[in-house]
Amino acid sequence: MTVSERTDALRARMAQCGVDAYVVPSSDSHQSEYVGDSFKAREYITGFTGSVGAAVITAGDAALWVDGRYYIQAEHQLAGSGVRMMKMGEDGVPSITWYLRGAVKSGGKLGFYGRTMGYEEGAGYASVCAEKGASLEFARDLVGEVWTDRPGVKSAPVFELEEAYSGEARAAKLARLRAKMEGFGASRHVLATLDDIAWLLNLRGDEPDNRPLFAAYMVLDASSAVLYADEAKFGAQIRDGLRRDGVTIAPYDAVYADIAAIAEGETLLIDPDRVNYALAAGAACKLVKHANPTVMFKACKNETELRNIRAAHIKDGVAQTRFMRWIKTHAGLPGVDEISAGEKLRELRAEQEGFMYPSFGSIVAYMEHAAIIHYRAEPETAKVILAEQMLLTDSGGNYLEGSTDITRTYALGEVCLEHKAHYTAVLRGLIALSRLKFRSGAGGFAIDVAARQPLWEAGLDYNHGTGHGVGYLTTIHEAPCNIRWQIPAGKPVPPALAEGMVLTNEPGVYVEGSHGIRLENELVVRKAEQTAFGQFLRFETITFSPFDTDAILPEQLTEGERAFLNDYHRQVFELISPHLDSSEQDWLREYTRPI
Amino acid sequence: MTVSERTDALRARMAQCGVDAYVVPSSDSHQSEYVGDSFKAREYITGFTGSVGAAVITAGDAALWVDGRYYIQAEHQLAGSGVRMMKMGEDGVPSITWYLRGAVKSGGKLGFYGRTMGYEEGAGYASVCAEKGASLEFARDLVGEVWTDRPGVKSAPVFELEEAYSGEARAAKLARLRAKMEGFGASRHVLATLDDIAWLLNLRGDEPDNRPLFAAYMVLDASSAVLYADEAKFGAQIRDGLRRDGVTIAPYDAVYADIAAIAEGETLLIDPDRVNYALAAGAACKLVKHANPTVMFKACKNETELRNIRAAHIKDGVAQTRFMRWIKTHAGLPGVDEISAGEKLRELRAEQEGFMYPSFGSIVAYMEHAAIIHYRAEPETAKVILAEQMLLTDSGGNYLEGSTDITRTYALGEVCLEHKAHYTAVLRGLIALSRLKFRSGAGGFAIDVAARQPLWEAGLDYNHGTGHGVGYLTTIHEAPCNIRWQIPAGKPVPPALAEGMVLTNEPGVYVEGSHGIRLENELVVRKAEQTAFGQFLRFETITFSPFDTDAILPEQLTEGERAFLNDYHRQVFELISPHLDSSEQDWLREYTRPI
Repeated sequence: MTVSERTDALRARMAQCGVDAYVVPSSDSHQSEYVGDSFKAREYITGFTGSVGAAVITAGDAALWVDGRYYIQAEHQLAGSGVRMMKMGEDGVPSITWYLRGAVKSGGKLGFYGRTMGYEEGAGYASVCAEKGASLEFARDLVGEVWTDRPGVKSAPVFELEEAYSGEARAAKLARLRAKMEGFGASRHVLATLDDIAWLLNLRGDEPDNRPLFAAYMVLDASSAVLYADEAKFGAQIRDGLRRDGVTIAPYDAVYADIAAIAEGETLLIDPDRVNYALAAGAACKLVKHANPTVMFKACKNETELRNIRAAHIKDGVAQTRFMRWIKTHAGLPGVDEISAGEKLRELRAEQEGFMYPSFGSIVAYMEHAAIIHYRAEPETAKVILAEQMLLTDSGGNYLEGSTDITRTYALGEVCLEHKAHYTAVLRGLIALSRLKFRSGAGGFAIDVAARQPLWEAGLDYNHGTGHGVGYLTTIHEAPCNIRWQIPAGKPVPPALAEGMVLTNEPGVYVEGSHGIRLENELVVRKAEQTAFGQFLRFETITFSPFDTDAILPEQLTEGERAFLNDYHRQVFELISPHLDSSEQDWLREYTRPI
Repeated sequence: MTVSERTDALRARMAQCGVDAYVVPSSDSHQSEYVGDSFKAREYITGFTGSVGAAVITAGDAALWVDGRYYIQAEHQLAGSGVRMMKMGEDGVPSITWYLRGAVKSGGKLGFYGRTMGYEEGAGYASVCAEKGASLEFARDLVGEVWTDRPGVKSAPVFELEEAYSGEARAAKLARLRAKMEGFGASRHVLATLDDIAWLLNLRGDEPDNRPLFAAYMVLDASSAVLYADEAKFGAQIRDGLRRDGVTIAPYDAVYADIAAIAEGETLLIDPDRVNYALAAGAACKLVKHANPTVMFKACKNETELRNIRAAHIKDGVAQTRFMRWIKTHAGLPGVDEISAGEKLRELRAEQEGFMYPSFGSIVAYMEHAAIIHYRAEPETAKVILAEQMLLTDSGGNYLEGSTDITRTYALGEVCLEHKAHYTAVLRGLIALSRLKFRSGAGGFAIDVAARQPLWEAGLDYNHGTGHGVGYLTTIHEAPCNIRWQIPAGKPVPPALAEGMVLTNEPGVYVEGSHGIRLENELVVRKAEQTAFGQFLRFETITFSPFDTDAILPEQLTEGERAFLNDYHRQVFELISPHLDSSEQDWLREYTRPI
């Protein structure tokens, strides 16, 4: 079926149900950052493949709201589909809510599928119904009803993340969570986000769509807990273990009826940003709205996790360092392009003990491709890599010891002075944040400027955050903290950085059509000294692979920056060289020499 | 009457009205930062003189909520009063809202005087009534009814701030405001904050309590405007001018009835943070809640205002520089103490043409007194100033050319190395912020770290913001922007810094019982270059008076910091020396020499 045949099929269903306008969001049932194929209803109904964007279909119109990142892609993908693009944030473009005020008739009906609609977003649309005296149909998945070849949900066994990796028993985690739940005056708590559930239960999945996670909901009270999931994924030993900790398994979909059945007098702790509309709207009991306590628990890694993560980073550093040597000596040879280089990097990581799979889709971007921040090499357009200019790689691995995320940009042969100046400015930004000592209580928004200042001084900048939280074999972008200088309008102020959090430090410079440079280490938030003026925090760098000294203009570094770099390279040699053969060691010694 | 006699008198009134609990806040009717004596109901009923803190009186209890700044003062002032202190934010101390849930009976009555209660705060208490099925009495001023010797409201004539000072005609300001009002879909707009009204009308007052402001409310629609104020304050010429611009004067209190009379179909633009509860709660029409557009208009000074402000700062710089010479040569002489030094500083400012009066209560603090951030010298405790250690002055003037705020700390004779190191670190913080170039879009929270980093590096800090907006002959602390690394919980994210804003830059170090150092310049936000990476902003420093080189450890400054300081001192000499006699010039030349 073409897109316009699909929208027409949807319109026929809408007419049967008396729905004036039907909203199709890009979410799954668990507010996941990346959604599995069976949840790509918005892609099915519009043809647009971007990860963010919502569609509204009416009898006479079909419109897709996208943000600035996607204007070009959407224009291309929507051509001839009958779906028009609504450029979010541009002057005169109505928001979805404003659009619905016109599209839903007084006393009419608005529809969306509540199980794939975020609660806050859905509540906003529901308020339009209230204004218009219209009713809301959120129980029926109208796109699903017309989606003939919808992919199935993949099932894979769940495995236990042993305490040697998690550092805290499930029972202890459940007890901590219950204490928080009671502190909020709630008798129940519902969890719908897959990373929260995986962390809480010390379980992981291996599903193509959600890799280390598995589809589930969870409801706790003071003494028992129900895990709503496909029981077939859980082996006997895991089921026994769960039972010992008071966790029983119920069918995945049963959570909706169970939430609805909670008595009115009960109080349910629910995270408005981390449940879907159907889950919250179906509850008759009192809701206490607050961020899942597991979000903060999970973000603050314990010492076992931190020890493991460091070990994962040493493995990753060996692979990345070998890749650096390979690309700097193989650029310009036949067959070396963005695809084969990406494959080489994956192979080198795969050689490392305990490597499972990449922690996210790698970026291997040569020359002007590196200026495309979320570039993916495709066979048709992949660039051949020559012995000149710069190559950017942004990749990571999942190990039982955690997940890694590292970016390096390499000079291949001759590199012009401007590119070296940009590289050096980016490196100075990375170093400034790495060295920062800051007061406990600072949010990421307060310290981002440290990384940007060396760039801003030179009139440079990068249009992405400096850092994001990193999950432990869960999601590579982890809430609640990040390092960004702007707080999006209407969003809550992120909490302060706390001891044990793992964050990336990834400044960059991108010149469209020319080159892109990004450098990324991971940092652990550590306690520094307490003085009469307060408790201070600092960062420990846990990524170990050389910055390419061929790309650095040493005279543009301050003495302190140079000392940091030399000390960092000394550490890299100490930690990485024992895993290398002697010719690799000789090479690494050269690339970690003091400058 | 003693405090307990006053609370008993209030209790008798409460009993007559059937009020279970009566809240007495510290606000006036205009959400002013400093309130006049006739509004000090909370002080009258508790004896506590601090500027922030709310009391709740019940039949059997009287409690005062204060924050950490006031624990010591409140303990002292509440002793024997029968009023107990509630330490806000301490573990186990209930919030006022929680307390009221217990104090107000089911179906009972809560009271407060709506005209002196902030709208948001009052709405919070009103929600307790909703929970308890209680009623709310907010029309009666029960404290006022028992306040036998309440001071009257002072009346003084209003004067016109000519366009040579304001830079924009009243009619133009009204037109800009109406365009915003219409943009929000509102047919009316109410203003209750005195600085907004004074700015909008190019009028100023001269009342002891509100110095350059005057008590008023204002209501606009698309073509007319009503100023609710005491007409006797307005001369014939001013009344004519207002009339020409479509502004009529109505009695001050009539605003309440007029707001209540706005038809239900009308839409009223109202700023929830800038009106009192009675004003908003009395409206039957639809409310559009948004910050007063005048807040942002007023914060972004036009070029006329900026030219004037710079002129005011040169006058102020002459006075401050003369004071510096005087105190450095007179410390240790008989009769020189914090009080007489403050008087000297005031006299030197008063010599400047067009000086009206200080822009806020001066701080002149010697040695350990300087560690008390809001220190005020009192005759009984003022320190004699010797020719040793450090003296801090934080003061400013009001001129027709605007308001100033400047802090300097001076070395008097021998100063120990630690104090010099602290002085140098504070100066480095000030310089770092002064020199910062930053992306347009940055809020003050994103750049505060620039000033703190040199201090944090050394384990130092200061528990106040780095900067606040400065009003033009209105209020010395001006919304909406500031430079602070933390965003208080529940508060909105401040908007981005914008061209033309005037902010202070005032880092410090305070060691209790020993010494305090603060240095403060004012900055104007200016456009820097636009590059392919975005629009950049920078700061122009507009305060001109030497930093005391006797207190600086030059070897602890970087080359860039030293260059900034030397260039600043060169400017100070250029701008200030023409106003000095030749012996003063010789002295200034020495104190502005390159180091």
